[in-house]
Amino acid sequence: MDCYSPDPDAVVELANAYRNEPNYESYVALSSAIEAPRQKLFKRMNMATQGTEVIVSLRKDFLRLVKNHPELKPIDFDLLHLLKSWFNRGFLTIAEIDWNTPAVILEKLIEYEAVHFMSGWNDLKKRLGPNRRCYAFFHASLPNEPLIFVEVALVNGLAGSIEPLIDPDPQSEKGDADVDTAIFYSISNCQAGLAGISFGNFLIKQVVMELKKEFPELTQFSTLSPIPSFRRWLSQELDNKESTFLTQSNRSTLSLLSETDWSTSQEHCELLQPVLTKLCAHYIVNAKKANKPYDPVTRFHLGNGARVERLNWMGDKSTKGLSQSAGLLVNYFYAIDEVEKNHEAFVNQGTIAYSKDISKFLLAN
Amino acid sequence: MDCYSPDPDAVVELANAYRNEPNYESYVALSSAIEAPRQKLFKRMNMATQGTEVIVSLRKDFLRLVKNHPELKPIDFDLLHLLKSWFNRGFLTIAEIDWNTPAVILEKLIEYEAVHFMSGWNDLKKRLGPNRRCYAFFHASLPNEPLIFVEVALVNGLAGSIEPLIDPDPQSEKGDADVDTAIFYSISNCQAGLAGISFGNFLIKQVVMELKKEFPELTQFSTLSPIPSFRRWLSQELDNKESTFLTQSNRSTLSLLSETDWSTSQEHCELLQPVLTKLCAHYIVNAKKANKPYDPVTRFHLGNGARVERLNWMGDKSTKGLSQSAGLLVNYFYAIDEVEKNHEAFVNQGTIAYSKDISKFLLAN
Amino acid sequence: MDCYSPDPDAVVELANAYRNEPNYESYVALSSAIEAPRQKLFKRMNMATQGTEVIVSLRKDFLRLVKNHPELKPIDFDLLHLLKSWFNRGFLTIAEIDWNTPAVILEKLIEYEAVHFMSGWNDLKKRLGPNRRCYAFFHASLPNEPLIFVEVALVNGLAGSIEPLIDPDPQSEKGDADVDTAIFYSISNCQAGLAGISFGNFLIKQVVMELKKEFPELTQFSTLSPIPSFRRWLSQELDNKESTFLTQSNRSTLSLLSETDWSTSQEHCELLQPVLTKLCAHYIVNAKKANKPYDPVTRFHLGNGARVERLNWMGDKSTKGLSQSAGLLVNYFYAIDEVEKNHEAFVNQGTIAYSKDISKFLLAN
Amino acid sequence: MDCYSPDPDAVVELANAYRNEPNYESYVALSSAIEAPRQKLFKRMNMATQGTEVIVSLRKDFLRLVKNHPELKPIDFDLLHLLKSWFNRGFLTIAEIDWNTPAVILEKLIEYEAVHFMSGWNDLKKRLGPNRRCYAFFHASLPNEPLIFVEVALVNGLAGSIEPLIDPDPQSEKGDADVDTAIFYSISNCQAGLAGISFGNFLIKQVVMELKKEFPELTQFSTLSPIPSFRRWLSQELDNKESTFLTQSNRSTLSLLSETDWSTSQEHCELLQPVLTKLCAHYIVNAKKANKPYDPVTRFHLGNGARVERLNWMGDKSTKGLSQSAGLLVNYFYAIDEVEKNHEAFVNQGTIAYSKDISKFLLAN
Repeated sequence: MDCYSPDPDAVVELANAYRNEPNYESYVALSSAIEAPRQKLFKRMNMATQGTEVIVSLRKDFLRLVKNHPELKPIDFDLLHLLKSWFNRGFLTIAEIDWNTPAVILEKLIEYEAVHFMSGWNDLKKRLGPNRRCYAFFHASLPNEPLIFVEVALVNGLAGSIEPLIDPDPQSEKGDADVDTAIFYSISNCQAGLAGISFGNFLIKQVVMELKKEFPELTQFSTLSPIPSFRRWLSQELDNKESTFLTQSNRSTLSLLSETDWSTSQEHCELLQPVLTKLCAHYIVNAKKANKPYDPVTRFHLGNGARVERLNWMGDKSTKGLSQSAGLLVNYFYAIDEVEKNHEAFVNQGTIAYSKDISKFLLAN
Repeated sequence: MDCYSPDPDAVVELANAYRNEPNYESYVALSSAIEAPRQKLFKRMNMATQGTEVIVSLRKDFLRLVKNHPELKPIDFDLLHLLKSWFNRGFLTIAEIDWNTPAVILEKLIEYEAVHFMSGWNDLKKRLGPNRRCYAFFHASLPNEPLIFVEVALVNGLAGSIEPLIDPDPQSEKGDADVDTAIFYSISNCQAGLAGISFGNFLIKQVVMELKKEFPELTQFSTLSPIPSFRRWLSQELDNKESTFLTQSNRSTLSLLSETDWSTSQEHCELLQPVLTKLCAHYIVNAKKANKPYDPVTRFHLGNGARVERLNWMGDKSTKGLSQSAGLLVNYFYAIDEVEKNHEAFVNQGTIAYSKDISKFLLAN
Repeated sequence: MDCYSPDPDAVVELANAYRNEPNYESYVALSSAIEAPRQKLFKRMNMATQGTEVIVSLRKDFLRLVKNHPELKPIDFDLLHLLKSWFNRGFLTIAEIDWNTPAVILEKLIEYEAVHFMSGWNDLKKRLGPNRRCYAFFHASLPNEPLIFVEVALVNGLAGSIEPLIDPDPQSEKGDADVDTAIFYSISNCQAGLAGISFGNFLIKQVVMELKKEFPELTQFSTLSPIPSFRRWLSQELDNKESTFLTQSNRSTLSLLSETDWSTSQEHCELLQPVLTKLCAHYIVNAKKANKPYDPVTRFHLGNGARVERLNWMGDKSTKGLSQSAGLLVNYFYAIDEVEKNHEAFVNQGTIAYSKDISKFLLAN
Repeated sequence: MDCYSPDPDAVVELANAYRNEPNYESYVALSSAIEAPRQKLFKRMNMATQGTEVIVSLRKDFLRLVKNHPELKPIDFDLLHLLKSWFNRGFLTIAEIDWNTPAVILEKLIEYEAVHFMSGWNDLKKRLGPNRRCYAFFHASLPNEPLIFVEVALVNGLAGSIEPLIDPDPQSEKGDADVDTAIFYSISNCQAGLAGISFGNFLIKQVVMELKKEFPELTQFSTLSPIPSFRRWLSQELDNKESTFLTQSNRSTLSLLSETDWSTSQEHCELLQPVLTKLCAHYIVNAKKANKPYDPVTRFHLGNGARVERLNWMGDKSTKGLSQSAGLLVNYFYAIDEVEKNHEAFVNQGTIAYSKDISKFLLAN
């Protein structure tokens, strides 16, 4: 450990003193000794004009450096510790983003969108049109920088395809008539320098509340989500001779995926659909990594208390959608009265909540 | 130490592990162990709506409790540690307070004013009139609560009396004509729950910058300050037979202070003025408590890098002014190009910077 | 007519030209000739910074001048014509006034309150407390000047006494629980320079809409109003030997009004109550001036489509209330579904809408 | 005249009454009679929510209709009269437009830009970058609609070419260093429904003041303007055998203009430049239409008090620039201390103010 870290000998001595006489003075002495001097430096930096911005940007660069220099990880530990304290949920404000928002913020949405690519202002305007909503968290020290944002479509019934949400027919989206479902179809973290701080769960909960207040007629809250690691996992399984997920018949059907344009061949699709859909259900529910769902998006929404609701074949035919999720999209459903229970069961027992629709795939041969 | 404090045995063990192998894992383990669980609780509380407000208010109550329960001091140590992090200068915004400010904030100024009492809205309006300025620090999580505010009068030459600043002749304060001096005549901390966090030095520096920008013609920045502990100290010296500050002749003159209305008797004042003024200069420069200036206001401004500039006889004839400061007011002068140097000399060598005017009193017999 | 008025000969000539050939050119020529040159001057004045403010202030002074100089009335006609155009309802915005409003506006409410005197900020704060609302119209060119404001109390059932509305028991006004009635208890025009332009009816209608939106549970909208010309009219009737309103018995009872403190004598009040209440009902419904209700407040609310609902004995015991309205207050009730009909009947046939409660007094002997 | 116009007989009668007795009553009667009932209708329409917007939009449509129905012109006269009163300079506010402005307003700039076409958001962002400014007038009743806007480049010395202003090299535009000249390079009216109301002169004057305040170092204010009717006029002169502007030699040189791509042929340009530049100077100064400068842009800036300063060969090589202005751009210079004098001389004697630079072309053979 370098000289900016707490002095090991001093720490041991003060720890002993604290054990011998655990009082105010010994506690303060020990606490102060264990706080690395670099923390004082970061706090001092933050005092300057735009200090917070500089620190967040510095950590972004620093994280790249740490990858090749693991000995610097303790520094990032302290930096992350400070940033977690500063970006506590209590210091975030939610803002609705719409066409009245300053361009300096809107252009960041185009830049930061991480799920469904926006090519420019025209794409953005569609996502802020009638029956569309967008919300972001902001911190007072980064006034023009969203920390995270979520895009929502208000529709009638569960949506299964991304296209009509991000490129709607202008005729069909006139008023707020007859919507009963809010679809969270894209959620993007914006600040690489704040990696490791979780904003998404707070944002979703807050947005559900905002929407309930504005549209009391909404009864369903659900995502329409990619399954971004599905095909990577599938490749691993295909490479794994002893995979318990794949049958020989599966393997032969899946070989069609190596054909270019399989997704536009009706014939191929008819063969692939039942196999991929069933495997995807298994993947979402049963594939694990360190005892947690293999897919990061599954991990996120299940951790928030959602349940796996429905798989949508060819929900996303974009290049990215095909290459990552085999064109499938999944709905994670936020049932307000079971979110708490699902969350607890997931965290404590690793239980995955899913619908009957999904269970059919799991039970099928 | 109670159960919410770090476990002494675990801490010693982890400290030893860290000494044996000072790496990322041992550092994280130790750092995490030393952080009292109550800190997590406070951070969780802060996430709720108006959480910050609740915590600041809680600490206000808690500080009263701690007075009689010193065993609770470690809890306050953690709370203060968190609040210092959250109320870092980088998260504060300065706001000019004037007659366009919402009443909900203005009424707090009347309530929090700690130096020169305001009886109500009329007094307040005078302090926000022509050639008067008021600035406050705010935190985004306490939108209607000033953390600290300072009142400034723009005048020509150093001001020596408080009356014309807080109750100006409406005729004489018309425009901004001919002002060259900014007098900081009152600075008040507002949040008892944030005691121990220093805002004043940052505020004064920021206000000097704001004023320089708005009024390039300003050349002098000075306070007009009470000497609130002067008479308490004087009593102690009078009681102290071996005081090195007082001569026998001083003692007999000072006995006049026990007469009611000494301050309105021209005869008494003529005798008292030279004695009190000289003693006050000695008090400010030489009286110490724990190696620092005895007077808290002296400590504050000297620590910021100001110098003691001028003593003003009968600058404050209010009951409070007479009973605390013997009616004297002092100017602490912020000379922009010597603030840094003064601050360093004060902090490192305990040097008190003062003007020739003051040195005359110190050298006089 | 002075030289700033249209030239009579030119006007006659152009009027004849227009009659002979009523086309675009003759119409423009005539229209231009009839527009007094002073109108151009006023429009030019309005272009300057704060021009609108200056013109409104100028008219305030001018109206005083006109009283003694009727020959200047044509100038005021033009000025009022312009101001009516500029202060068209479409250019007014409604704002809710509360304790977050800037002091510079709030102090004007204290100054302009014309119905129930406010002695200062404490009185004002009570009127902006729980279950109280205040709304004003503003014009973009007079940003800190309310044009008119109305004060509202949200209560349960019709209010009959002003005291609990303007000086409520802090204990009893905690939440918004159980309110079903909005009482408009004070409405004040603010700008003497805009006399002759009617804002009140638009404001009341707008406030009813705002309140319905915020509190769907409100079912009754009513005023609690003074009858400011009642006692002046009563004096005239007493002086009028042939009054058809007064009986001999009435006259003898009413002589008690000349006693000081009649209102605090239980004995006098018992005699006066039935007589005054009945006469007041007759006054409101039947006393006329130029074929319209004698009382200006009656004229205003009936013209807006309200009905006379209830008389409240000793509703206002203030000096002003006793000397103008004999302590009586009246509720004008705005029944949303009959406002239009009442307004039409009032304007076209002079019909006064009133409740059964009132009709009892009218029929009684 | 239709039935919505003033009754000719009544008007003549009231005009006679006014001549016989020119007093308040006769004046009011005549004034009221001459005001067409449709004016009341428009005023009533304006009272509704978004009424002003509707009326401005209605006039836009109406103006198209009037073109083919001259009998409707009196209606437009009244409408314009009202709109002039409502959109009086005193009711307009200036706003700086930058990248912090809401997208809903920014997209209108792209749409309304009438001088130098913007293809989208990227073009717009360049015009709002470093050393660029944009200002617009707004009216409180049309919050998201600029009425007129002007684009300004801060440069060093007079600019002669449009390209570097609207598509600057990102490297060369870093700070505000060394700028001494504000170039107004584009000014566009936005509301077809407000045609006939002059905003431009007020906007330019206000922007000069704003810029002087923000950048005291600016010493020159000038336009860089197209000469949009130059080539149309030139065609007319070429067709006119007796033109006094053209020599036979000119005519033969100008025949080169009929070649496609004349502007990219160095040879052609060398022949054309002296002829076109000289003719353009004559055109600007001497070509007239109804006793005023032939070119509408010349009329506008000369009317505002500017002088013709400099002609810039190949200042605008865009298709539009070549086809309208033969690629020339002109600087109209606003010398603050001669604007008033120039304006008076132009309005009263028709005097065209121009520089020595221009006079050289006029005197040359």
